[in-house]
Amino acid sequence: MKIKNIAIVGGTHGNEFTGIYLIKKLRSGQFQDSWDDLNVDLIIANPKAYEKSIRFVDDDLNRAFLNADLANLELSGYEANRAKVINQKIGLKDAPKTDLIIDLHTTTANMGVSIILLEENAFNLQMAAYIQKKVADSYIYSCSGSLDHPFLASLAPYGFILEVGPIPNGVVRQDIFDKTKDTLDVAFEFITLANSGNIPERNGTIEVFKHKKSVEFPRDQDGHINAIIHSNLQDKDYQPINKGDPLFVTLDGGIITYEEDETLYPVFINEAAYYTSDMAFDLTEKVILNIE
Amino acid sequence: MKIKNIAIVGGTHGNEFTGIYLIKKLRSGQFQDSWDDLNVDLIIANPKAYEKSIRFVDDDLNRAFLNADLANLELSGYEANRAKVINQKIGLKDAPKTDLIIDLHTTTANMGVSIILLEENAFNLQMAAYIQKKVADSYIYSCSGSLDHPFLASLAPYGFILEVGPIPNGVVRQDIFDKTKDTLDVAFEFITLANSGNIPERNGTIEVFKHKKSVEFPRDQDGHINAIIHSNLQDKDYQPINKGDPLFVTLDGGIITYEEDETLYPVFINEAAYYTSDMAFDLTEKVILNIE
Repeated sequence: MKIKNIAIVGGTHGNEFTGIYLIKKLRSGQFQDSWDDLNVDLIIANPKAYEKSIRFVDDDLNRAFLNADLANLELSGYEANRAKVINQKIGLKDAPKTDLIIDLHTTTANMGVSIILLEENAFNLQMAAYIQKKVADSYIYSCSGSLDHPFLASLAPYGFILEVGPIPNGVVRQDIFDKTKDTLDVAFEFITLANSGNIPERNGTIEVFKHKKSVEFPRDQDGHINAIIHSNLQDKDYQPINKGDPLFVTLDGGIITYEEDETLYPVFINEAAYYTSDMAFDLTEKVILNIE
Repeated sequence: MKIKNIAIVGGTHGNEFTGIYLIKKLRSGQFQDSWDDLNVDLIIANPKAYEKSIRFVDDDLNRAFLNADLANLELSGYEANRAKVINQKIGLKDAPKTDLIIDLHTTTANMGVSIILLEENAFNLQMAAYIQKKVADSYIYSCSGSLDHPFLASLAPYGFILEVGPIPNGVVRQDIFDKTKDTLDVAFEFITLANSGNIPERNGTIEVFKHKKSVEFPRDQDGHINAIIHSNLQDKDYQPINKGDPLFVTLDGGIITYEEDETLYPVFINEAAYYTSDMAFDLTEKVILNIE
């Protein structure tokens, strides 16, 4: 198997500027020497949301790629149409002409460099392991398990969603920009090695954080969020939560603790985009996978 | 002179959640014991923008308080009307029934606790000096000099805009929330002391950063921003910039340096809200003022 057709996508969320700036840099010809004879599409996925510096215009574009929604012409919002157009361009989802997608995101959470996998196939795991070895403060976060993902990156069988943080929405920081660029470079290094049959020797296991569930903010009687992420939890993405650990401080000064027996690992702690759905963070379990 | 009528305002920008959460906490009766017989209005200034987690609906509410605009019925956007309503409630600007306003903001810039003064009157300078002595990582930033300010806080003769950062828009962090609350508590401590004639002895001078000018992002031929704040400058609010210091790295790899002879002090470095006006940061000069 050789990777030939690649899409690098920025601005799937219009207020995550880092990927958009990187696409602009790549379009101006930077870095491309090392890409040899790969076909690389450089896509700004949601230009209208970028123009307004908002996540989306009508609906979250990165939830618009379910097969049923792509086939449903009744869904006619900006992102519903845009998803269909992007599927035509780099999909089709059920018959992909693109081998590999890297979808560039940022988060307000302290998630370092997070490689989010939608499929735990051997190529993806090897690529993630390679990146993790070369990129500081990087984590592998798996959302595999669903037959049909709503994410843009699900249009191709290989690749990942790259989440780099913490960074506010609507700004670019050189440190986060450089981490994103460096990770992309390492991914291409791996792809080039893999295409030539020269994947370097590696450790036989990797640590993967597997998505388990979401945790909501506490709410008052009117349904409004009435608590703040506890300072002990803030910025502690990928660090274990044990029974009794504080999760929230409520506006009236109470503390809400973690009450389950199972040790889990939070991610997307205090991600701005999740407030609208009252989501405070996600919980993952840490597993060790063999790669071969 | 006694301070009697006070307005504490949150959510002048709808995506700066900290002030809104603090107003909610104060409304639920927290902290108010120490306020004695002060009349305190607790206002969420832009609830519609908060609902959408955006800075404003039609126009920036915190630029809507010029006398001419408050008098102009032709200006009929959401914020233009809201400014008139708030002016009726806690103004009038030209005949204020409110003595003192504290308008709670946050910034994506690393500005710590910034006390922004619109008027350098003796009471404001004394209050700022008192806060600075008691609150860690606090700065006094003066925007005085204009006869007519467009800011909400200009509706009263005393008070300040409180900017606390860094924090992304659309989230609350306990550390930033606590700093905001603590600063508010210290301000009320000062007001209570001042009203009883017991302002404590203090140093006779304070360091004030006076607004000088704004610096724009570099742009390409199409007018789009094509550079990033240099990592040497990022997060260095209130630290001196000297001739030759790097300001930006352009997308093609160039470095743009500061070319003026005068040492100045940047603030609002990489503030998300300023991207729409292509503004990268503001520059201030540091002055020493006598307080008496």
